Amino acid sequence: MRIGERHWRTIFLEDDGYTVAVIDQTRLPFDLQVRQLHTAEDAAEAIRDMVVRGAPLIGVTAAFGVALGLRRDPGDAALARMLDLLGRTRPTAVNLHWALARMEGLLRAAPPASRVELAYREAQQMADEDAAACEAIGRHGRALLERLSLANGRRRINLLTHCNAGWLACVDWGTALAPIYAAHDAGIDLHVYVDETRPRNQGAALTAYELGAHGVPHTVVVDNAGGHLMQRGAVDACIVGSDRTTATGDVANKIGTYLKALAAREHGVPFYVALPSSTIDWTLADGVRDIPIEERSSREVTHVRGRAADGRLEEVEVVAPGSAAANPAFDVTPAALVTALVTERGVVPASREGLASLFPERARERA
Amino acid sequence: MRIGERHWRTIFLEDDGYTVAVIDQTRLPFDLQVRQLHTAEDAAEAIRDMVVRGAPLIGVTAAFGVALGLRRDPGDAALARMLDLLGRTRPTAVNLHWALARMEGLLRAAPPASRVELAYREAQQMADEDAAACEAIGRHGRALLERLSLANGRRRINLLTHCNAGWLACVDWGTALAPIYAAHDAGIDLHVYVDETRPRNQGAALTAYELGAHGVPHTVVVDNAGGHLMQRGAVDACIVGSDRTTATGDVANKIGTYLKALAAREHGVPFYVALPSSTIDWTLADGVRDIPIEERSSREVTHVRGRAADGRLEEVEVVAPGSAAANPAFDVTPAALVTALVTERGVVPASREGLASLFPERARERA
Repeated sequence: MRIGERHWRTIFLEDDGYTVAVIDQTRLPFDLQVRQLHTAEDAAEAIRDMVVRGAPLIGVTAAFGVALGLRRDPGDAALARMLDLLGRTRPTAVNLHWALARMEGLLRAAPPASRVELAYREAQQMADEDAAACEAIGRHGRALLERLSLANGRRRINLLTHCNAGWLACVDWGTALAPIYAAHDAGIDLHVYVDETRPRNQGAALTAYELGAHGVPHTVVVDNAGGHLMQRGAVDACIVGSDRTTATGDVANKIGTYLKALAAREHGVPFYVALPSSTIDWTLADGVRDIPIEERSSREVTHVRGRAADGRLEEVEVVAPGSAAANPAFDVTPAALVTALVTERGVVPASREGLASLFPERARERA
Repeated sequence: MRIGERHWRTIFLEDDGYTVAVIDQTRLPFDLQVRQLHTAEDAAEAIRDMVVRGAPLIGVTAAFGVALGLRRDPGDAALARMLDLLGRTRPTAVNLHWALARMEGLLRAAPPASRVELAYREAQQMADEDAAACEAIGRHGRALLERLSLANGRRRINLLTHCNAGWLACVDWGTALAPIYAAHDAGIDLHVYVDETRPRNQGAALTAYELGAHGVPHTVVVDNAGGHLMQRGAVDACIVGSDRTTATGDVANKIGTYLKALAAREHGVPFYVALPSSTIDWTLADGVRDIPIEERSSREVTHVRGRAADGRLEEVEVVAPGSAAANPAFDVTPAALVTALVTERGVVPASREGLASLFPERARERA
């Protein structure tokens, strides 16, 4: 995507051909800085501390992390250590495990001397595939939004999104935001309500930043507001991303997604989830029971980071001193609340049959 | 309630007998400061800027505001101006209008020379009535929590509350928190999940402060977490306050309440609303249609106030520069989602019949 005059991806190789560069998402929207990753440990830290975040981008960063690590030591033991290190950074997004399994399958079979080159090529391939998948999601999702706009007599349609499932969560384009960009660019009149998305404010910071840079009309609201907006008929559709989707269409996404899905059903508002197939965990059938939910530091709840009056990024404490805080980072929206899944191969019902119809080779593999 | 060794009310007269003192709630939980109100304008500003907040406390502050104003000019024109000024401070809480109507009824009929004394006496009477009503709500609500505890084999029960409906929202005791204090003091093992309650963080700042001061076990969570917690069976009951309740039992309360009510119904979690009868608007039958929802400044969304590392209270900007923000301050939970209303006269279904059975004189008056 463009920021000003330059085309950006969230992750790319520096001119030396091996240093990995990422946009530091902990400093956005106030400060666009690139951080360089030199080792597998750098990559693991960037994922854990959410310098990079978003399920697709986490997967690609982990793949590049393997490549970085192999430069230092391409042996079997080092490879195993790296896969383990990177695999333990964050528990909910399945793309991480998908990407590492793909790297492992390729690299274990290869002689150590060829591994570095293979790993970089595969990681770059994953990045390109993710960008292509997101572009396809944008195309399929745009058709949905076009129908919504037509049904609304071409008057402005209002969408609601939660967290950031834009290009900053991916390599390029985004998942939930890709259809919005595509529809906006096609001249469809739309406006987006952006949930702030506490505790880390990815909506207010990242989604608003993205939409603003692209010129898409939008309004930030606190996470509490969506039910009221839907009750008043102010939302025509919700569209969010996914960190892990079961083979049956249950969706783990940023904490708070589930509350919006309940309100959407109550008010007959379509609830769409956009995801590349790398986010599908074909081994799981019951998301509420089986998807591990990351519990992050309570400090993300007790403190809020933002820009102080003097321009510095600063954290302020917002919880009464001495009070405990809990920080579950994701929740699970059962398939029954999801109107449709928007994938790189098309739009389907959130069900085993729906997903299997689009990805028969993956569904068969696991059946 | 006690803070340390002293018994506090949120509003009281200074020793001079006419200056009104309030706890400045914009500085809590980090700084306990008393602010003095000398004029009706001071009282209006304190309500508008949320130095005082909470439906019951807003009503009592407005009543004292009238008394302050009459000290300067007890004439009819001045009285009318004051009632208008104070009545326009905040639109959703009906206690404001209830209190001002009560003051107006009393004072218009009285000769100007006697108005100041009458007004102070009536305002103090309202404060005492509110404290007594909240204490009664605590007693009735405690019985509910006792039954919940018994049904749970006396194991710890987990409650969830939104915003602050504690003693800081009232004169003393609180509405939603009064039953929690009463049950805790009676030895019932309970724990409270406290919704942060963006944008103004009354949960994280005020409810957590109150519960901590009283020794009630509690955990602060972001507003997004409640659906997940209920889905996992971690919440035995929700209990919240109300800013305006229709004669039919619809409840306007802090934005986000409605989302929790939807999740509670989905998971069979009882959803209780605690309120003094001053919060009932007997003229309204359809809360979603008829309760005016305050739209507050977008700055409350774009900026977060807290304590910086150096101890100062500071605001940090959290929304991407240039992005618009909307800030509806309340939402309406339809009676069908409310398990029961807890009032100073007892616990009843959220329905016209329920409320009329407890307050026949008020229901008749409006029928």
